[in-house]
Amino acid sequence: MPKSVCVVEEDDNVQSDLEEGRYVYLFSEGDSTKRSLLGGKGAGLCDMTQIGLPVPPGFVITTEACLKFSDNNKKLPKGLLGEVKYGIKVLEERTGKIFGDKKDPLLVSVRSGAAISMPGMMDTVLNLGLNDSTVSGLAKITGDERFALDSYRRFIALFSKIALDLDEKQFDNLLEEAKKKKKIEYDYELDIKSLKSLIKKYKEICKKETKKDFPSDVYKQLELAIKAVFGSWNSKRAIDYRHEFGITEEMANGTAVNIVTMVFGNMGNSSATGVLFTRDPSTGENVLFGEFLINAQGEDVVAGIRTPRPIIELKKEMPRLHKELMEVREILEERYSEVQDFEFTIEKEKLFMLQTRNGKLGPSALVKTSVDMVEEEILTKEEAILRVKSDVIEQLMHRRIDPKNKLKPVTIGLSASPGAATGTAVFDADESERRGKLGQEVILIRTETKPEDIHGFFTAQGILTSRGGKTSHAAVVARAMGKPCVCGAEAMVIDERSKIATIGNIKIREDDLITIDGSTGKVFLGEVETIEPKISDELFLLLNWADEVRTLGVRANVDTPEDAELAIKFGCEGIGLCRTERMFNLPERLPVMQQMVMASTKEERMVAIKKLLPMQKSDFVKIFKAMQNRPVTIRLLDPPLHEFLPRSEEISREFETLKEFKTVLRKMEDTPNLTKVLDSKLSKHLPKIDKIINDVTNLEDKELIDMLIESKEVALKKIDTFTEVNPMLGHRGVRIGITYPEIYEMQIRAILEAAAEVIKEGIEVSPEIMVPQVCTAQELKWVYDIANKVEKEVKRKNKVKVEYKFGTMIEVVRACMRAGRLAEIASFFSFGTNDLTQATFSFSREDAENKFLPLYNERKILQDNPFEILDIKGVGRLMLITIEWGRKTRKDLKIGVCGEQAGEPRSIKFCNGAGLDYVSCSPYRVPTARLVAAHAKIEDDKSDMLN
Amino acid sequence: MPKSVCVVEEDDNVQSDLEEGRYVYLFSEGDSTKRSLLGGKGAGLCDMTQIGLPVPPGFVITTEACLKFSDNNKKLPKGLLGEVKYGIKVLEERTGKIFGDKKDPLLVSVRSGAAISMPGMMDTVLNLGLNDSTVSGLAKITGDERFALDSYRRFIALFSKIALDLDEKQFDNLLEEAKKKKKIEYDYELDIKSLKSLIKKYKEICKKETKKDFPSDVYKQLELAIKAVFGSWNSKRAIDYRHEFGITEEMANGTAVNIVTMVFGNMGNSSATGVLFTRDPSTGENVLFGEFLINAQGEDVVAGIRTPRPIIELKKEMPRLHKELMEVREILEERYSEVQDFEFTIEKEKLFMLQTRNGKLGPSALVKTSVDMVEEEILTKEEAILRVKSDVIEQLMHRRIDPKNKLKPVTIGLSASPGAATGTAVFDADESERRGKLGQEVILIRTETKPEDIHGFFTAQGILTSRGGKTSHAAVVARAMGKPCVCGAEAMVIDERSKIATIGNIKIREDDLITIDGSTGKVFLGEVETIEPKISDELFLLLNWADEVRTLGVRANVDTPEDAELAIKFGCEGIGLCRTERMFNLPERLPVMQQMVMASTKEERMVAIKKLLPMQKSDFVKIFKAMQNRPVTIRLLDPPLHEFLPRSEEISREFETLKEFKTVLRKMEDTPNLTKVLDSKLSKHLPKIDKIINDVTNLEDKELIDMLIESKEVALKKIDTFTEVNPMLGHRGVRIGITYPEIYEMQIRAILEAAAEVIKEGIEVSPEIMVPQVCTAQELKWVYDIANKVEKEVKRKNKVKVEYKFGTMIEVVRACMRAGRLAEIASFFSFGTNDLTQATFSFSREDAENKFLPLYNERKILQDNPFEILDIKGVGRLMLITIEWGRKTRKDLKIGVCGEQAGEPRSIKFCNGAGLDYVSCSPYRVPTARLVAAHAKIEDDKSDMLN
Repeated sequence: MPKSVCVVEEDDNVQSDLEEGRYVYLFSEGDSTKRSLLGGKGAGLCDMTQIGLPVPPGFVITTEACLKFSDNNKKLPKGLLGEVKYGIKVLEERTGKIFGDKKDPLLVSVRSGAAISMPGMMDTVLNLGLNDSTVSGLAKITGDERFALDSYRRFIALFSKIALDLDEKQFDNLLEEAKKKKKIEYDYELDIKSLKSLIKKYKEICKKETKKDFPSDVYKQLELAIKAVFGSWNSKRAIDYRHEFGITEEMANGTAVNIVTMVFGNMGNSSATGVLFTRDPSTGENVLFGEFLINAQGEDVVAGIRTPRPIIELKKEMPRLHKELMEVREILEERYSEVQDFEFTIEKEKLFMLQTRNGKLGPSALVKTSVDMVEEEILTKEEAILRVKSDVIEQLMHRRIDPKNKLKPVTIGLSASPGAATGTAVFDADESERRGKLGQEVILIRTETKPEDIHGFFTAQGILTSRGGKTSHAAVVARAMGKPCVCGAEAMVIDERSKIATIGNIKIREDDLITIDGSTGKVFLGEVETIEPKISDELFLLLNWADEVRTLGVRANVDTPEDAELAIKFGCEGIGLCRTERMFNLPERLPVMQQMVMASTKEERMVAIKKLLPMQKSDFVKIFKAMQNRPVTIRLLDPPLHEFLPRSEEISREFETLKEFKTVLRKMEDTPNLTKVLDSKLSKHLPKIDKIINDVTNLEDKELIDMLIESKEVALKKIDTFTEVNPMLGHRGVRIGITYPEIYEMQIRAILEAAAEVIKEGIEVSPEIMVPQVCTAQELKWVYDIANKVEKEVKRKNKVKVEYKFGTMIEVVRACMRAGRLAEIASFFSFGTNDLTQATFSFSREDAENKFLPLYNERKILQDNPFEILDIKGVGRLMLITIEWGRKTRKDLKIGVCGEQAGEPRSIKFCNGAGLDYVSCSPYRVPTARLVAAHAKIEDDKSDMLN
Repeated sequence: MPKSVCVVEEDDNVQSDLEEGRYVYLFSEGDSTKRSLLGGKGAGLCDMTQIGLPVPPGFVITTEACLKFSDNNKKLPKGLLGEVKYGIKVLEERTGKIFGDKKDPLLVSVRSGAAISMPGMMDTVLNLGLNDSTVSGLAKITGDERFALDSYRRFIALFSKIALDLDEKQFDNLLEEAKKKKKIEYDYELDIKSLKSLIKKYKEICKKETKKDFPSDVYKQLELAIKAVFGSWNSKRAIDYRHEFGITEEMANGTAVNIVTMVFGNMGNSSATGVLFTRDPSTGENVLFGEFLINAQGEDVVAGIRTPRPIIELKKEMPRLHKELMEVREILEERYSEVQDFEFTIEKEKLFMLQTRNGKLGPSALVKTSVDMVEEEILTKEEAILRVKSDVIEQLMHRRIDPKNKLKPVTIGLSASPGAATGTAVFDADESERRGKLGQEVILIRTETKPEDIHGFFTAQGILTSRGGKTSHAAVVARAMGKPCVCGAEAMVIDERSKIATIGNIKIREDDLITIDGSTGKVFLGEVETIEPKISDELFLLLNWADEVRTLGVRANVDTPEDAELAIKFGCEGIGLCRTERMFNLPERLPVMQQMVMASTKEERMVAIKKLLPMQKSDFVKIFKAMQNRPVTIRLLDPPLHEFLPRSEEISREFETLKEFKTVLRKMEDTPNLTKVLDSKLSKHLPKIDKIINDVTNLEDKELIDMLIESKEVALKKIDTFTEVNPMLGHRGVRIGITYPEIYEMQIRAILEAAAEVIKEGIEVSPEIMVPQVCTAQELKWVYDIANKVEKEVKRKNKVKVEYKFGTMIEVVRACMRAGRLAEIASFFSFGTNDLTQATFSFSREDAENKFLPLYNERKILQDNPFEILDIKGVGRLMLITIEWGRKTRKDLKIGVCGEQAGEPRSIKFCNGAGLDYVSCSPYRVPTARLVAAHAKIEDDKSDMLN
């Protein structure tokens, strides 16, 4: 163990707040297990130092110091500065340079680094230690006055922005002016005179704005920089980021600060800097991936100001160093068993490592590398499964642009983050946020993006930039969010002030609809049709491994034969919920359904029901054929009947139009000479009336008008009788089945006859009939008796025995309480967690989400929206009781969940722990559910779910 | 033991269906413990025989035989007739008469009698055994041919009606004709010739209608009579009666048949018959009570055909027999420890007992006799408490006519069943039923009532008859139902055909509103104001005994100071629910409340809130003073705010009117001479649009109108934002308290300041603040913090510390699941079983009761309406879980119920068994609740409530 630099007991001058331990760790002391104390960057630098990679000397100030700083009204904790000074002394010893020395000055960078990576969210200061006197030392030592001055200029600008909180634009404008004056393109082309003049002007700005001279004391510089970095932990953008990514205070507790000896990638053409991934973070391909710039500082690469070159080109420029980097890549992956994202600088042909961290990979890349690393024996299958988080699959299940699409893109940029996105163009982050919150779909277009733009990312469908490479800020953040991103589309010139992007003679203005394809880098005008997501070979393999592991079944909620086929493609094991009512919504079926609902007598109703039977049956035949012998759970009619009726206002309007029309007609009869005048009035009504009675030619047929008026009146009255105060708790589900048994009987007949027909074709089927809204065993018995009767009739008619299961939805609280009794009749339960959540909370979803639920979340009355994430403490507890009581009656009771939450990862984990047999979710969520079920099984995270 | 008459083993000729036992018991064999087998009447007759009272010889056919008869398609069970013949033989031996003998014929009555008394519901045949030949024997033996013929006539008529199912009116009409012809009033004045002619005509009717001769074989007569009595068990009126009184099949399983030697009260003036109670069944007074008729058969008294005389008059007529009856009274009460209702006949100065049973007492009588019998040491206090069923108290809690009322009645009848009732007059039972089912309140007026009228009783508010005494059918049934009844109002002449009742020159027609007072016998025209029920001294005492026994507390739901005083009178121990929102509904407060609801900003809202504060406070002051230191649970605002707003349709109408009005005004501009100035007084009435429109017709202040139109438009939009899809599950309860904390803060302040004010006057108070609609502990915490803050402010301001409890409603299912957590904050729970039932069933009460709940009850999907009777298996189970979890956290958690079911007896029993601390019901139900709580404690009926 090296001697500790700043343990309290060793230095009486240092009065630390810590009774034990310290605020500062040298890179040679730190330990990658102290990640939460040292931050990710600090831990990485310590680690690399210790495994022998070339890291410049430096030390870390702990996150603990940051927290004290925040808690203590932005004052550095006692003793910290003493420890820092001690650290600087060690750096001086190791480099032979002296901090603030006018001959051979030590320069350092001050870098943030929290435990959980928040790329670009917090601040960094470079070249610290320069002032009017040290800059000449640097010039002499390096023999490059221009370089020294340029470094000084950069330092003043960056320090002013970060530590003095000045607007960087003033500095940028001066720089641009100077470049224009000299007619040069790049910063490094500025001559000594221009630089000196710029430095003078920069310092004048500081003086003017802060009423003080720019600080020349290097320790003062250091102190201010440390404070600025600590302060950036609670900047708006950092807080937004943590909120969006669900980073809680427990997970990330302040940022560490890394003080690192400066190395320079901008010391001429034998210097360079770059950002690399050990594998391609977008595709996952197993190649060294990334970009570099000759004669530049690291920030130039990340910020996307100059478009960097692919790393492969370094092989030609500096073959030895390229080889060295290839070796680094091996060492890093061996060390971390994870793709690394690292920064390097080459200072006069010497390589330095400035950072390494786990790479943020795009969803496809994450899947591919997981599978590859199993094959490379870096990961086990279970590790590979756990490595892919649920949201990754969700992102892969986005729709994409058909590869066969022949549309011509307006330009092609870099494919920075895959997936297709369509939206209206917006040119700044605030606008993106504003519109996104209104529910509009937008594409954020920027020359380049900066950390301050982060809030606009959350609300955009996709990101498009004209500058910056695949490791630029836009690319990194978009990949982390799984949003499509095209960057470096250099053919596009963006005028952010007037909100126009120009590509040749094409102009994209705010509000124009565009589509980007982050998988190909293509940009299209307008909306481009997308196709179903495809499951890649790697994902297919990974999900199969998940299937091997998991015990929780995954079914799909499917209402149509088409969806059934899709769900099978996505790997469902059956249908957990087929909503029969959706089959009635087709244009040719709705009128028949309405006829049934409006019927006044059973006879009238039967006429309509007889027409509906073959319609339902044909759908079931197709679904059964698609599903083969997989279980198909069919829910009998659930919604209140009035949902099938036209809205009362609509009929009312028609009624009024007809009456007015009649009046006009009558007037025409009475005063034939007025006919002409009235005729024009009449013509106003014609199109409306025409709509109401489209097959009638002679509109003046009074009898017909009277008949229509009467029929509308009858309809209005009828609709009125259906009105309910609380439709959610009204006449629906099995309550309809009991009031009008003929409806349920028809549906059961359609199911069983369809099954019989398919069986006769030699195909096995497993229909399951499910009753909704059950609250008492008597209801279930009532439908059960109907089913038994119909089954016998179908058997007699078809000479085929249809084996079917009979079960109930559990979505009414009383059903939970009566689970033991219900299980005597039902051979399966399916929790309808949408309705059950409404009933458990006494929240009407529609009302709650519009009125008070957002406030409830904001004020932390509720952590989540229980309609999206299963409420484990309330609804979950009720489910556990139900499961226990149900299985007490019937040991092999099959229990599933078919609410919307069934596709949500945390909810699936609960279902796994609760011992459910399956979850049933939308086809698109099936792959996610398969993966999460495997996660749950592996983690076996049943413990303390109810604490 | 006397020799058994009909045990199977003793008689090979008798092939009984029973492997053991028998169908027939002699009175000297029967046993009052065999009540369910022998029926009430049979058991009584056996019992009286065995304690030495003078019962004519007879025997009982068991209820078992009746059930077999019903099950076996109305065939008498095998062996029965053999046993009956054997029984008859025994009667012959004991009386020395022979059944069917032309010299000295044995005559019998055939009387029904089920285990549970159903007065008048089933059939009885008298004088059976008469035919053309035995009638002359009877004439000779009695030396009274007229009597013999009259008996024969009566027998034929009654037998024809009951056993041959002929319409009795044909016989009645012939009788009336004969009497008219002879110009006589009473049946017994008919001479021999007339009787012979009548008998001939009667038999002709039988022949004509049945195509057979009237049966002369006496055993055939007996067989037919037994079958008829058995058959009457399943007559419509008997089934209606059992349904109405909740007599299930387990409780009453068929009727027994009693075959009794005839004795005759109509053998001249030394004979009589009567119906007596051992105490007054209406008032409970401890005197022999009842009526008799000289020279009449029992049916004459009950049917109310002749108005009988009070029993006290018998003391003068037959002093010895009156004394004998006084002795019988003593013997019976000693034997049964219960008021007895008995029938006697005096045949030529010899007393015979024909029946005894527990008397059906009116509610006051039941209470008084219970208390008296405790004082007489016949009953223990607990027995007295159990003797008074819960519905009795409910009946006593009916409103009554103020005794100080000076209104003149149109007539005064007998006070047959106490209580006041108002309704429209109807003259037949069918009409009463029809209107009653439509929800109309009717008074059923009849000359006399018959068992067939029973269905009309259920739906009437009260009964009024012109004939019959206090033991008439009408009186007995009305008392049993606890309905007000005035009978024997002889001044009233009723024409049932034309539906008019005439009293002097006053005519009461169908649809006329009348009021009867069953406590005084008074009949009034129109509606008469009633006053609060009064608790009699006896009831007061009984309820105090109940209080000594019970452990379950009884509180009242009270919203106003007036109700608080009433509730205390009725013996509540505190207020379990004070609904603060009801205080806002007063005409002078509603506009302020509306102002609060419509406020767009917090500032606007605060203006209204500041006005509401003193209003609420003053109410609380009064309530606290009324309740003294009894606990007062105050629920913070619960209903959705839009409930305080005018209906959108209403405003819409006003809006349209104003617009129309504006159009008219515009037209008036063309005629300047009509222009006038707006009356400044009108501006005061701005809110009352209609008034403005009325008064303003000749005005044209366009600005005002425009302003009004605009304000209506704003109001409409505002109301629109309040619209909810499912208001029951919407923005209400604590959700309002979280959205607008200032409202709850005001209410809490009003409570605590009122308490402080009252404390300063030296009165102790116990306020309890209760939060509605809570679903998570965070909500409760939120309000708790407000309460703590306000409490400190009130303390500082008033220099008084208000001790208050803080608790929560449990009416959302999730609250049940989170009971353990909620109990950390709440020191009491109160189950809101109305909402909890809605949430548990997912039934909206309004929708369910209108749409499918009646059908659910009819089809036995649900046994009861869960909004009236607590659903123990569902809601109750949820409550048990809640109680367990809540008390696990907080051992001394106080738990009550304040839903409507809290006043319902079965529900109260559950609450007692579940270990609740109190129930809280409407003030009127407090006495019932006190009694039922005592019942529950005594019965300790906790066992198997959940089976």
